[in-house]
Amino acid sequence: MKTKPVKGTNDYLPQEVELRDYLQNEILKTYQSYGFERITTPILEDAENLDKSEGGENLNLIFKVLKRGDKLTKALDNSDYANLSDMGLRYDLTLPLSRYYANNRAKLVSPFKCIQMDRVYRAERPQKGRLREFVQCDIDILGSSSENCEIELINTTTKALFNIGLKNFKVKINDRGLLNTILTKTGFAEEELASVCITLDKLDKIGLDGVRNELTEKGFAASAIDNLSSLFEKQPVTLDAVKELCGENEAIDRLENILSKVDKISDGKYPVVYDITLVRGQGYYTGTVFEVESIDFKGAIAGGGRYDNLIGKFIGESVPAVGFSIGFERIFSILTDNSYSIPDLKKRIAVLYDADSFYEANIKADELRKEYNVAMYEKPKKVGKFIDKLEAGNCDGFLVFGQSDEVKFF
Amino acid sequence: MKTKPVKGTNDYLPQEVELRDYLQNEILKTYQSYGFERITTPILEDAENLDKSEGGENLNLIFKVLKRGDKLTKALDNSDYANLSDMGLRYDLTLPLSRYYANNRAKLVSPFKCIQMDRVYRAERPQKGRLREFVQCDIDILGSSSENCEIELINTTTKALFNIGLKNFKVKINDRGLLNTILTKTGFAEEELASVCITLDKLDKIGLDGVRNELTEKGFAASAIDNLSSLFEKQPVTLDAVKELCGENEAIDRLENILSKVDKISDGKYPVVYDITLVRGQGYYTGTVFEVESIDFKGAIAGGGRYDNLIGKFIGESVPAVGFSIGFERIFSILTDNSYSIPDLKKRIAVLYDADSFYEANIKADELRKEYNVAMYEKPKKVGKFIDKLEAGNCDGFLVFGQSDEVKFF
Repeated sequence: MKTKPVKGTNDYLPQEVELRDYLQNEILKTYQSYGFERITTPILEDAENLDKSEGGENLNLIFKVLKRGDKLTKALDNSDYANLSDMGLRYDLTLPLSRYYANNRAKLVSPFKCIQMDRVYRAERPQKGRLREFVQCDIDILGSSSENCEIELINTTTKALFNIGLKNFKVKINDRGLLNTILTKTGFAEEELASVCITLDKLDKIGLDGVRNELTEKGFAASAIDNLSSLFEKQPVTLDAVKELCGENEAIDRLENILSKVDKISDGKYPVVYDITLVRGQGYYTGTVFEVESIDFKGAIAGGGRYDNLIGKFIGESVPAVGFSIGFERIFSILTDNSYSIPDLKKRIAVLYDADSFYEANIKADELRKEYNVAMYEKPKKVGKFIDKLEAGNCDGFLVFGQSDEVKFF
Repeated sequence: MKTKPVKGTNDYLPQEVELRDYLQNEILKTYQSYGFERITTPILEDAENLDKSEGGENLNLIFKVLKRGDKLTKALDNSDYANLSDMGLRYDLTLPLSRYYANNRAKLVSPFKCIQMDRVYRAERPQKGRLREFVQCDIDILGSSSENCEIELINTTTKALFNIGLKNFKVKINDRGLLNTILTKTGFAEEELASVCITLDKLDKIGLDGVRNELTEKGFAASAIDNLSSLFEKQPVTLDAVKELCGENEAIDRLENILSKVDKISDGKYPVVYDITLVRGQGYYTGTVFEVESIDFKGAIAGGGRYDNLIGKFIGESVPAVGFSIGFERIFSILTDNSYSIPDLKKRIAVLYDADSFYEANIKADELRKEYNVAMYEKPKKVGKFIDKLEAGNCDGFLVFGQSDEVKFF
C-alpha cells in the first residue's frame, strides 16, 4: 500500500495543524467581528452545476466522482463516456455559495453577509505552492449592489491579514465591465472578450510579449493586439488615461468612489491602487475585481470581485453579489517559511508514569490540566531519548510522576 | 441548475454552523487538554489503499474519483472498467491515519496521541441521521499495546461528551479476539468468522431472529447457529459465563482489567459493561472494541477499538493502535432536537446606516466591536420588517446610526 498522500495533497504534522488552526481561527474571529456569519456547503457538487458555472480555466481542473451501481453500468453499456460522473469536487466556494443562497434565501437576512472557510479541489499540475486540495477563506455579501460592500470586504479582509501579522501589502482594484469597454475600444469584438481576458490574466506569468503571442495564436486582429499592448506598455495606466480613452462612465465613477473611500478607511496602513491589468481568472465576475498583493512576499494573497449573474443562473432572477477570498495556503506557506510563532499558545506538557500508577498519575495530570494540555506517557525504557523526542516534537515540558512534583520546562 | 445540495449532504444555516463549530471546538479543547495533538490528512485517498483496507461493508460505499486525461482515455479504450478510478473519498479517518503514521513516523513521538476532526464520505442510502458527507471526531494512540490506552481513550471521550452537555450514557466493551474464540467454540470455522461478525453487527437492527436467518442464508452449519443463538438469548452474558465456555484467557484478563479501571476512573458518572454482542463493523479491528451508548437518545454516539494490523499493511511491521471516534452528526442532531443553546456566546448586533454615512457608522461599529460582533447594513426602505428578519435570524440587537447611541437588544 502507498504511504505518501495522493499527488498534490499534504499530510500535516501536529505543529503545522496548530498553526493552520490558529490562523483560521484568527481569520474567522475577525470576519465574525464584522458581523459575517459562517455557513458550510458540501464538498461534493452536482456535475451539471459545476460544468455551467463559468469558472474559466478551473472547469478543466474538476475532480469528477464516478457514478455508482446501475447508473454507472448503464453509462458504460451505452459507451456514454461523457456521463460517467454525476458529481464533482468543488473548485471554489463561490459556486456552492450561489447554489446555497438560491436554496436557502427565504431563511436568510438580505443582504446576506457570510463566511466560508473550507477545502476546495483542483486537478492542477502540482508545483511549489500549488496544491490539489487547499483551503480558501471567503467572505461574501449577497443581495446588495452598493459599493459599500466592496469597501467592507476590503476593510474586513485587510483587518484579518493584519491580525495574523501580515503587513506590507497593497490592494489593487479593477472593473471587469470597464476592462471590457477598454478592450472593445482597442478593437476586440464582444464575443472575443472572455477569451482575451483569459490570456490577459496570465500577464504576471508570461509578460506582455507572451500575451501578444497567445492573442496572435488565438487569431485575433493584429491591430487590436497592437492597440492593447501599446496601452498596457506604459504602466501604471491611470484612471484619467482610461477616461480619455473611454469617456466618462459609471464603472469609472464606481472605481473612483471605492478607491477614495478605501484610501480613507485604510488610515494610511496600505495603499490602494487602480490596476488595469488585474483580471482575476473566473469567467463569472461582472464588475469590480480586487486583489491583495504582498510586497514582501510577491504575488496575490487574496482576491475577489463582483459576480452579479451567478445566483441568477439558479433562480432566474439576478442577485447582486460580491466576495473576497484569502488564499490560505499561500499565507500558511509564507508564515511557515518565516518561522511565525503563535502568540499565547497554551503549553503542552508530558506526564511520564509507571504502568501500574496510571490512575494516580492521572489525578496529578488532571490538576495540571487546569493550566496546561497534559499528555500522559508510560515511562519508556530509554527515558532520556524519549524526552529528547518530546522536546523535538511539540512539547514544552515534562514531569516524571513519583520522582518530582514540578514540571520541568525545556 | 440544481439548487438542492447533492443527495445525502447538507447546506448548514448560520445558526447550525455556530453550534457545529462550538461543539467541535469544545471536543477539540477536551482532546487537547489530554495532550492529544491534531493532525490532518487529505480527503482524497489512493484507490488501492482504500480497497485493501478491510473496511467491511464500507468498502462498498466508496465514492470513486474518475481518472483524468490520457489515463482515463486509456482505461476506456481498453474497456478496463475496473480501473476508471485512481482515488476515492475516505470512508473513515482510521485508514488515512494509518497511512499518515507509516509516512511520518520518524517525525512523531511514539506512542503518538493524535486527534482528527474531519469529513468522511459514504455512498449510503440516505435516511434520517445517515448522511453521505459527515464529520467524525477521532482520537487515536499509535505505538502502544498497553491497556492504559483503552482507558485513556474512554476517559477522554467521555469527558468530551460531558463537556458538551451529554450525560446519560453507558460504555460497552468487548474484544474481537475473544468474540472469535467464542464463535469458534460455538462451531464456526476460522475462515467464517469475519462473515459471521458482519452479520452479528446487525443484531441491534434485525434482532436475533434476523441474525439466525442471515447466517442460515450464508450457509453456515445449523448447529453453530443454534449454539450461538442459545448463548446470545440470555442477555446480558457475563464474562464469568464466557470464562466457563472458553476457559481462562488473555483477552478476558484484559477486559477485566479495563472494566475495573474505567469503573474507577469514571467516578460513578457512567456505567461500563461487558457486551458480548458488540462487534463494530470494520474488519480491521483486532482486539478491544468499545462504544458509548446514549440512554436518553438510544443508540451509539461514539465507537472504536484496537486495530493492531492496519499500519503493518503499509510498513510491513505490525504497530499496535487503538482509536475512539465520536459520531459528530448524531450528537449534533440530538442537541439540535433538544434546542441546545451555546453558553457564553458572543453577541451579534446590527448597525443600520444611511448609504452616505458608511464611514462614520463604521467608526461607531468599530467601538462596539470591542464587545460584540457587529454587522453593518445599509438602512432598507422597510426598516421594521428588516429588523423582524434580523431577530428571526441570528442577531441579538441593533442600533440605527444617527438615531440612537444605544444598542437595542431583542
